[in-house]
Amino acid sequence: MIKRLIKKRVSSVGLPPGTLIHVGDKKVERVDIHVIDYDENKVDEMHFSDPDDLSDIIRNNHVSWININGLHNMDVIEKIGNKFNIHPLVLEDILNTEHRPKFEDYENYLFIILKMLSYDETNQEVITEQVSIFLTSGSVITFQEREGDVFEGIRARIFQAKGRLRKMGVDFLTYALIDAIIEQFYLILEKVELRLESIEEELIKNPTSETLQEIHRLRRDVLYLRNTAWPLREITNEFIRDDLPFVQESTKMYLRDVYDHTIQILEILDTIRDMISGMLETYLSGVGNRTNEVMKVLTIIATIFIPLTFLAGIYGMNFHYMPELDWKLGYPVVWFIMIVISLVMICFFKRRKWL
Amino acid sequence: MIKRLIKKRVSSVGLPPGTLIHVGDKKVERVDIHVIDYDENKVDEMHFSDPDDLSDIIRNNHVSWININGLHNMDVIEKIGNKFNIHPLVLEDILNTEHRPKFEDYENYLFIILKMLSYDETNQEVITEQVSIFLTSGSVITFQEREGDVFEGIRARIFQAKGRLRKMGVDFLTYALIDAIIEQFYLILEKVELRLESIEEELIKNPTSETLQEIHRLRRDVLYLRNTAWPLREITNEFIRDDLPFVQESTKMYLRDVYDHTIQILEILDTIRDMISGMLETYLSGVGNRTNEVMKVLTIIATIFIPLTFLAGIYGMNFHYMPELDWKLGYPVVWFIMIVISLVMICFFKRRKWL
Amino acid sequence: MIKRLIKKRVSSVGLPPGTLIHVGDKKVERVDIHVIDYDENKVDEMHFSDPDDLSDIIRNNHVSWININGLHNMDVIEKIGNKFNIHPLVLEDILNTEHRPKFEDYENYLFIILKMLSYDETNQEVITEQVSIFLTSGSVITFQEREGDVFEGIRARIFQAKGRLRKMGVDFLTYALIDAIIEQFYLILEKVELRLESIEEELIKNPTSETLQEIHRLRRDVLYLRNTAWPLREITNEFIRDDLPFVQESTKMYLRDVYDHTIQILEILDTIRDMISGMLETYLSGVGNRTNEVMKVLTIIATIFIPLTFLAGIYGMNFHYMPELDWKLGYPVVWFIMIVISLVMICFFKRRKWL
Amino acid sequence: MIKRLIKKRVSSVGLPPGTLIHVGDKKVERVDIHVIDYDENKVDEMHFSDPDDLSDIIRNNHVSWININGLHNMDVIEKIGNKFNIHPLVLEDILNTEHRPKFEDYENYLFIILKMLSYDETNQEVITEQVSIFLTSGSVITFQEREGDVFEGIRARIFQAKGRLRKMGVDFLTYALIDAIIEQFYLILEKVELRLESIEEELIKNPTSETLQEIHRLRRDVLYLRNTAWPLREITNEFIRDDLPFVQESTKMYLRDVYDHTIQILEILDTIRDMISGMLETYLSGVGNRTNEVMKVLTIIATIFIPLTFLAGIYGMNFHYMPELDWKLGYPVVWFIMIVISLVMICFFKRRKWL
Amino acid sequence: MIKRLIKKRVSSVGLPPGTLIHVGDKKVERVDIHVIDYDENKVDEMHFSDPDDLSDIIRNNHVSWININGLHNMDVIEKIGNKFNIHPLVLEDILNTEHRPKFEDYENYLFIILKMLSYDETNQEVITEQVSIFLTSGSVITFQEREGDVFEGIRARIFQAKGRLRKMGVDFLTYALIDAIIEQFYLILEKVELRLESIEEELIKNPTSETLQEIHRLRRDVLYLRNTAWPLREITNEFIRDDLPFVQESTKMYLRDVYDHTIQILEILDTIRDMISGMLETYLSGVGNRTNEVMKVLTIIATIFIPLTFLAGIYGMNFHYMPELDWKLGYPVVWFIMIVISLVMICFFKRRKWL
Repeated sequence: MIKRLIKKRVSSVGLPPGTLIHVGDKKVERVDIHVIDYDENKVDEMHFSDPDDLSDIIRNNHVSWININGLHNMDVIEKIGNKFNIHPLVLEDILNTEHRPKFEDYENYLFIILKMLSYDETNQEVITEQVSIFLTSGSVITFQEREGDVFEGIRARIFQAKGRLRKMGVDFLTYALIDAIIEQFYLILEKVELRLESIEEELIKNPTSETLQEIHRLRRDVLYLRNTAWPLREITNEFIRDDLPFVQESTKMYLRDVYDHTIQILEILDTIRDMISGMLETYLSGVGNRTNEVMKVLTIIATIFIPLTFLAGIYGMNFHYMPELDWKLGYPVVWFIMIVISLVMICFFKRRKWL
Repeated sequence: MIKRLIKKRVSSVGLPPGTLIHVGDKKVERVDIHVIDYDENKVDEMHFSDPDDLSDIIRNNHVSWININGLHNMDVIEKIGNKFNIHPLVLEDILNTEHRPKFEDYENYLFIILKMLSYDETNQEVITEQVSIFLTSGSVITFQEREGDVFEGIRARIFQAKGRLRKMGVDFLTYALIDAIIEQFYLILEKVELRLESIEEELIKNPTSETLQEIHRLRRDVLYLRNTAWPLREITNEFIRDDLPFVQESTKMYLRDVYDHTIQILEILDTIRDMISGMLETYLSGVGNRTNEVMKVLTIIATIFIPLTFLAGIYGMNFHYMPELDWKLGYPVVWFIMIVISLVMICFFKRRKWL
Repeated sequence: MIKRLIKKRVSSVGLPPGTLIHVGDKKVERVDIHVIDYDENKVDEMHFSDPDDLSDIIRNNHVSWININGLHNMDVIEKIGNKFNIHPLVLEDILNTEHRPKFEDYENYLFIILKMLSYDETNQEVITEQVSIFLTSGSVITFQEREGDVFEGIRARIFQAKGRLRKMGVDFLTYALIDAIIEQFYLILEKVELRLESIEEELIKNPTSETLQEIHRLRRDVLYLRNTAWPLREITNEFIRDDLPFVQESTKMYLRDVYDHTIQILEILDTIRDMISGMLETYLSGVGNRTNEVMKVLTIIATIFIPLTFLAGIYGMNFHYMPELDWKLGYPVVWFIMIVISLVMICFFKRRKWL
Repeated sequence: MIKRLIKKRVSSVGLPPGTLIHVGDKKVERVDIHVIDYDENKVDEMHFSDPDDLSDIIRNNHVSWININGLHNMDVIEKIGNKFNIHPLVLEDILNTEHRPKFEDYENYLFIILKMLSYDETNQEVITEQVSIFLTSGSVITFQEREGDVFEGIRARIFQAKGRLRKMGVDFLTYALIDAIIEQFYLILEKVELRLESIEEELIKNPTSETLQEIHRLRRDVLYLRNTAWPLREITNEFIRDDLPFVQESTKMYLRDVYDHTIQILEILDTIRDMISGMLETYLSGVGNRTNEVMKVLTIIATIFIPLTFLAGIYGMNFHYMPELDWKLGYPVVWFIMIVISLVMICFFKRRKWL
Repeated sequence: MIKRLIKKRVSSVGLPPGTLIHVGDKKVERVDIHVIDYDENKVDEMHFSDPDDLSDIIRNNHVSWININGLHNMDVIEKIGNKFNIHPLVLEDILNTEHRPKFEDYENYLFIILKMLSYDETNQEVITEQVSIFLTSGSVITFQEREGDVFEGIRARIFQAKGRLRKMGVDFLTYALIDAIIEQFYLILEKVELRLESIEEELIKNPTSETLQEIHRLRRDVLYLRNTAWPLREITNEFIRDDLPFVQESTKMYLRDVYDHTIQILEILDTIRDMISGMLETYLSGVGNRTNEVMKVLTIIATIFIPLTFLAGIYGMNFHYMPELDWKLGYPVVWFIMIVISLVMICFFKRRKWL
């Protein structure tokens, strides 16, 4: 994660500010501009590839959601920037797909950067895609790198006129977008929870050094999620602020709901971190205990045999005058003594709870 | 805990906000609406199953406590929502039984979510039930998932006109409800304290790996209690704020008392956490010490016998010219030397405090 | 500590607020009301057992210090409450002797709860007694559970007219009481310091598992002291606030002095905690080191003898054709070789600093 | 680092404040004053060695960037101080090249101290050079110790009139300088990341005590970077403040961008610190595990042979009446028993997962 | 440290506030009152032993620096208190030489307590002496316990009229005194740094348990320095506050410089603490590693010889029918097998990197 982030930053070192370079990889063939234009009574859907064609759709009392897939075509981005009067630095931030999430209020528009998470089942990893939301009077413009997003439910609600989305303005659409992104966290958390459970099971059944690495991997992923979720708190909080343009009082109640979710996500992540720490401790103390257990048993076996071997050694000595050697019962008596010694030692160890 | 929480959240991903879905299990057969309507002179008790029948009970200068058991019937909840003008998001929160505790001031009503704890003696676990309190002019509506609650004492006080409850308004009833919930924490803390004690005893008498797991389990439970208790601080604090509707100055003194209790609960939980950390350390260092002790004793036994065995080995050699072998006293002398060696070694170990 | 605290709380669960129950044990035979009434020129001392007799002593321009020993008689407490217009919740707090220290400003009186510490030499433990101070115009009422307190010095100063106590008002008397309680902390800290020293000595001379328990015990006690001292900071700080009734500017300078003391006490406790952590580390690393040292020496002894025993084993074999056995010098040569081997090994171990 | 810092400080102990002493080493032969004077239409470049010659270049509506390389000549620094009315304490701070980064607003000028980082490939270490920026109406003066800096890109942009630099005032030039310094951090972070990776690889393949030292070294370097980066946050934040002279609204947007970068750098450094902690734990638990593994295997070998050796010892005894010795099959039977015993033990160890 | 502090506090328990007792030891024979009286044109130096003689020196437009060495004579201190109208509590603080550093603004004077550090080369320890500074219109009074201080440089600057000291007022003198005390910290830090280096060297070359104690000692000393330096931050910060009497705007710039120094000292101390933690970890993991290394080698030696000894034991058995014993090559073949076995084992251990 960090590696990619630093690498991309380094690539733009020394360039004048506001220089538009796309620091991500090219992820779609050609830029697609998808417009959904709606009010309470009507919905229009359009696809463009040239921002110049957008001009005629921006009318009064409508909400235009302009979604741009693909950021590699500087030309398209610049034209959009000119059309909507977007500051060059904002455009630079849109193109820098490793930007940290943020919320900025530029008097005549609001600008939000968020991270959209999804889970790649084949590679078992979380995929992060940056979504920039540009909110101005009558229009919401979203910028994405790839095709596919978490907004299908919102599109369906617009077309089917479900819920209050069609009756509300750009602020409510923005809320819906943010809400969709934050809800996605719960799906990721579910995966994390599954990994947590499988590690816990392994810990009880058969902890190996593989388990340790798995714990460390999970800890790092949770840390990453936390770093991604943390700015959301601040962003939603700033969104509820009193003096923002475009944001109506009725929408703020919904934003407060989103804020509650981000708090809950952070609390869950903190609890998970705590559980991971506990698992690390359990692993380490478990490994230590098991080795100690093995060593103890082995050492006890050795300890029982050492005096016996000594005794055998005694009667293996070649002294000419060793009266025991001539006794008829010498041999069985030695066996008897040896058995007695070993029994006494075993009892002693048992009583001391060493066995 | 977390697992259930995430699962429920995931089930509502993609739905428009304000959609009423009950994310808990169905815990009672049919919704029961229990109304206690009182003023200083009179108390009425009624049971309903249809919210439409409620209309005639809301009169002036009375306090109506409407308690709803069971949240699975969307219809009932929606009717109540309409009757009392409750915002759809608030209704959604009421139905989401994994919501975190919160306090919200909606100008013409206050809305509080709390967690009611109880201890299930058979399964030895803490049961959490969400209680939503909706406080508006003349009415307090409480929403619960299950039958049975911690409010029986309050009902008794209303019917028997004990204390000042009958003489005060909705704010005092709300205070009484919160107080009852927070008092319950002390009962749970008592159970925690008992477990703490039993672990401590085990730690001294016979610590096993079972003890370690018990400590971890207790730590997790205490963490859960802390997460549940933490928002209470904020909630009671906001309740004391100056500019709330319905809340009279005289009630604030009682709320401050509740605030003191939450602070104390949090302090107790912190102290318990500290004690658990100490117990973990004691366990780990104890286990290590014990193994070390065993190993030391065993190694000492081996160390005493090894030179003796060597000596026996010497006189087991078959050299033709070994003068000692022919001596008459060879054998007893060797025994004597061996005894001296082992005594010297034991003394040496004793003096060094190794034994 | 916690156990008692929780138990007492649990006993009052379900009772209406303001119900007067004494949650402590009965510690004196009968309630004693001790009044010292003074101004710059005159001092009167009286003992009562019935609060009704108090009525005539409350005059103008006098300071009345009413000290009540014993809280088990509800009747007496209630009468006092009525006489001085004390809110039922305040009375409840006075009787709940496990309340956390607090400061509350009720417009026409101030109410302070503090913990008075003393050291029981016979049982070697800190005894905590709750002192509630009720400060109203012309009167200071102190409530204690037991006979005996740390205020004898103040009484002496009043009777002997030493210092400025006699010339000042109720605020200065309250300051003097708080100061006396906080000064007591230093005496307790001295005991803690002695225990710290004796543990340190043990750690160097002869650390046993007893020492570890002693460290844990000390840590717990210091934590308890810290929890007791922490609210004092807030209390004294609130006392200095600008807008309090009864508190004159000249007294505030003295209160600031008390505030400095509480800060110092907290700093000392933090330093002690830090030292205890260091001692724990020293103990653990010390125990580990010692065992390692023992094991190393023993293993070295074994390692030296094992090759020698092997050599003896070689010449104990019964092969018919072993030329060395027939050599005249075979036996002494083997001895010589054995001595050489062991010397070489010892040198090797010495050079590697293993011995 | 700290050593040098303390040493330099100590050298100025006891001198009156404002005494100009250069606490760094002399790093260039002679002081070079390099002036770039530009407005939207024209650029002039000049080199001076005597500040007196500067007088005629300070005109209206121009931006003069005066860069001074070399701080060892007190005379030059003092002349500049007089010409621009710089407070003696500011001059002292400029000369004290171990000053911590800071931002100060002196009504008619702003003064900023920053650390410029670069990476010395030959010695594999980060080189820090202090840059002081003095911003007054129409002029930006930068003070450096050595030749060579990270501002070449800015100079190129001025001469080639690229970007908006030529069109803006002194505040934008200052922003550009700060931005160049902060961008340099990403290059350093890239090196850190490479070291992190190589250590991680070592940890998996062949962790030695050298690896441990490498981890500690990296941790110390990251700590140093963090200490250097931390004040940048505060500095850029203060720069965005509303009421600064010379700083225009349009530049503040760019400064906010810089602020975002510093936050990101700090976040990256925190993540790296966390990863280093994880690596330390992995190393320690890995070393412990490996040793335990070795010891276990060796102990198992010993444990298998000890009973066998005992058995051999038995039949090495010299008793006259040992019937087994006379049996024809005695010898092979003993071998058979020994093989059975060892197989049973190996199976037992395998089943217990000890092997 | 703490011990002395607590002891002194305990000695004043129970006394009325404002009682003048000197809680330090008597460190000089007789109290010396040293006055330097200066303005821009003239300097006078005087020595007194009776404060009554001071009266005539306090004139207008002069700065009088009155330095008092020795605090054991209550009489002298009280007279000074009366002459300058010092509040009894301030006098008490001056005499309590274990007071924590503080800054207090009493409308018509400022009162500062600081700790002056010096390093005793013979005992290798830091010596702390309390300096109380009393700043009123036209006079600065400093109270010290012992002869000798860190102010000689300031005296020299006054007499030689170096720097701006002679031209400025009492505030600048106070600044100079504080600056001199804070500069002293750097000298102490240099000593700490030397100890740090010597420990680091020991850690690499030959870490003993002595090294561990040295680390703990250093940690405690650094903690003490930090506790002493920490309040300085607050004190200098309060000194820069806007509304203080006597403090001119021009002096505040110098105070800000002092503030920078205290921040730097605290940062250095934090870095040193971090380094000490790293050293502790290095020591502990180093000790563990070394013991493990020793044990591993020894166990390997034992493991190689155990099978060989077993083989020797086999052919030491006395069975009558052991064909190998009669073979001519039996003995050399056994030797050959033994050598092969040991070589195979050594190879195996080498390949597994156990040797």
